[in-house]
Amino acid sequence: MKNISTIAFSGGVGGAKLALGLARALPPDELLIVANTADDFDHLGLHICPDLDTITYTLSGRANRSQGWGVEGETWNCLEALYELGGPNWFRLGDRDIATHLYRTQRLREGARLSEVTAEICVAFGIAQRVLPMCDDPVSTIVGTAEGELPFQDYFVRHRCEPRVTGFRFAGADRATMHPELGAAFDSPDLRAVIFCPSNPFISIAPMLAIPGMTEALLSIRAPIVAVSPIIGGKAVKGPAAKMMSELGLPTTSLSVAKHYSDLATAFIVDEMDSDEVACIRELGLACEAMPTLMNNDDDKLRLARSVITYCHDLSR
Amino acid sequence: MKNISTIAFSGGVGGAKLALGLARALPPDELLIVANTADDFDHLGLHICPDLDTITYTLSGRANRSQGWGVEGETWNCLEALYELGGPNWFRLGDRDIATHLYRTQRLREGARLSEVTAEICVAFGIAQRVLPMCDDPVSTIVGTAEGELPFQDYFVRHRCEPRVTGFRFAGADRATMHPELGAAFDSPDLRAVIFCPSNPFISIAPMLAIPGMTEALLSIRAPIVAVSPIIGGKAVKGPAAKMMSELGLPTTSLSVAKHYSDLATAFIVDEMDSDEVACIRELGLACEAMPTLMNNDDDKLRLARSVITYCHDLSR
Repeated sequence: MKNISTIAFSGGVGGAKLALGLARALPPDELLIVANTADDFDHLGLHICPDLDTITYTLSGRANRSQGWGVEGETWNCLEALYELGGPNWFRLGDRDIATHLYRTQRLREGARLSEVTAEICVAFGIAQRVLPMCDDPVSTIVGTAEGELPFQDYFVRHRCEPRVTGFRFAGADRATMHPELGAAFDSPDLRAVIFCPSNPFISIAPMLAIPGMTEALLSIRAPIVAVSPIIGGKAVKGPAAKMMSELGLPTTSLSVAKHYSDLATAFIVDEMDSDEVACIRELGLACEAMPTLMNNDDDKLRLARSVITYCHDLSR
Repeated sequence: MKNISTIAFSGGVGGAKLALGLARALPPDELLIVANTADDFDHLGLHICPDLDTITYTLSGRANRSQGWGVEGETWNCLEALYELGGPNWFRLGDRDIATHLYRTQRLREGARLSEVTAEICVAFGIAQRVLPMCDDPVSTIVGTAEGELPFQDYFVRHRCEPRVTGFRFAGADRATMHPELGAAFDSPDLRAVIFCPSNPFISIAPMLAIPGMTEALLSIRAPIVAVSPIIGGKAVKGPAAKMMSELGLPTTSLSVAKHYSDLATAFIVDEMDSDEVACIRELGLACEAMPTLMNNDDDKLRLARSVITYCHDLSR
C-alpha cells in the first residue's frame, strides 16, 4: 500500500463515523480502514458482515442515519414474506441490504476472497478509500455469558445484549492470517497514524488484535497508535461497551479503556467531558488529550478526524 | 394419499390457471397437483422453482395477474441494489419472491426434501391442496438449440426463447425417483381423473413423464388421462410452445399436441375454436371434445375445471 499515512481500525457504527470523517479529511489513497469481521455470520445461507457493511454504507452515504445500521430508505418486503413462511426475522435484513449479502455470498462461493469482494463493493459504491476486512479467514466472536457461550449475533441481536457477559473468545483467530495489504501498510514509509476508532474495545477492536502477528506489527511501527475512547461520561455512545465493562468488573470510564489499551497504544483521546481523567491516563504512560468526540453530524466527524490526525502528527514529530 | 380423485400435472402459468380452477371445483383432499421441477435452477445461491412457485402463488392468490409470473404488488429493491453491485438482473427476482427462495434454499440445506418444503410453503400460504414436485431429485431441462445446448432458464429468460430449438433432454431424470405420494395417488381407489394441464408438452409435461416408472404408472391406471391442449387457434396462449413446435417441424395445432400424447392419454380437450380438429384427433384413438379453454379470469378457470372433471367422469363410466 503505497502512500498510506493513516490506518484506522474500526468496528460498526461509532467506528464508521470516525472513518467517514477520516475519509473526508485525507486524500483517498492515504487512508486504509481495517474492519472487524469477527461479527460476521451465516444466516439463511447469506454471509453477513455487519461491520464491513456499516462502514461501506456509511462511506458511500447509504447508511440509515437515524437507525444507526442498515440502508437509508430501506424496505422490508423480503423479511416480511420470509416471516410469513415461518422464517426468522430476528435479524433485520432489509431488501437492499440482502443484495449486498447475496452478492458477497455468491462471490465467496465462486472463490473470491472477502477482501476482493469488499473491494468490488467499494468500487460499486463509489468509495475511493481502501476498506479491508481484518483478514480473509473466518473468525467468530463467541460471547461468554452467565448462561453459557453465545455466538455473537445471538448475543447481540437475538438476545439484545441482555445476558451478563463473562468474557470473549475469537474462534479461528489463531489460524487467521493478517492481510498482506495491512502488513504492507504497516511498512509504509508514509505511515503517520494508526487510529483505534471509538469502537467497542472487547468485541470490535480486540478480535483484530487477536490475529497472529497483529500486536507485534503494531508494536514495531514508529507511527503513534492513538485510541479514541468509546466511553463518554461513563456511558457508551451506542452499543453494549459500558454494560460489558460493568459486567466484567471494570469501571465504565475512559481511564478503564485506556488501561485496556495501555500495552499497545501510544496515546489516548477522551471526550472533553472526561478531561478530569487525562492526568490519570497520562500516568499510565500514554499521551492523552481531551477533545469533543461526540459525532452527531458530518461536521462533527470531520472535525474529530482532523483533530485526531493533527494530534497524531504532533506526537510523531 | 387417501381420497385423491384427481391428479393434475402442471407446468407454470397456463397449468396453474387450470390447477386453481380444479382447486375451487374439488374438495381440497381430493386434488393432487404435480409440478414440473425441471425448470428449477440455482441462481445467486438460491434454489428457484419457477413452476412450483407459480402454482403456490396462484393457488394462494399471491400471483401477479397482469404479469403472468411473480407476486402481486411485488417490489424490486433487492434486485436493483444487486444490479448496482454488478450482480445479474436478467432473472427478475422480486423482494417477496426472494423470501420464498431463501426459505426453500435454507430448508434444503438443512436436509429437508423439496416436497417437504413445498408442503411447508403451502401451509404458510393457506393452501389446503397437496402440491407435489414431480420428484425430490434434481432434474434439469437442457434445451438443444441451433447454437448449442442451453440450460433452461438461459434459453427461457436470458435469451427470451430466441434460439431455434432442436430438442430437449432432462438431465438427471433417469436417476430420479417418482415421489411415493404420487405412486400412492395412482393407486387411490377413488382416482377418477389424471389431467395434463394446458402446459407446454415439451418442457413442462415431458420432464415429468421422463421420470422412471411414470409412463408405466400412467398406463396402468384405470382412470382416464385427459390432456388439455395448450394450443388455441394455432397459437400458444402464453410461452414458446407454438414456436418450439414450428422449429421442431411440427404443425402448430392441437392435433399435433394430441399426436404427441396419443400413446399415453386416453382423451384430449381442444378449444372450441379448434373444433374442426376433433374428428382427426378421434382418429388417433383418443376421445376428444371441444370446449372453451381460454382462461381469462377465475370464472373461466372454474368453468373449465368443472367441464374437464365432468368429461373425465363421463369417460370413466
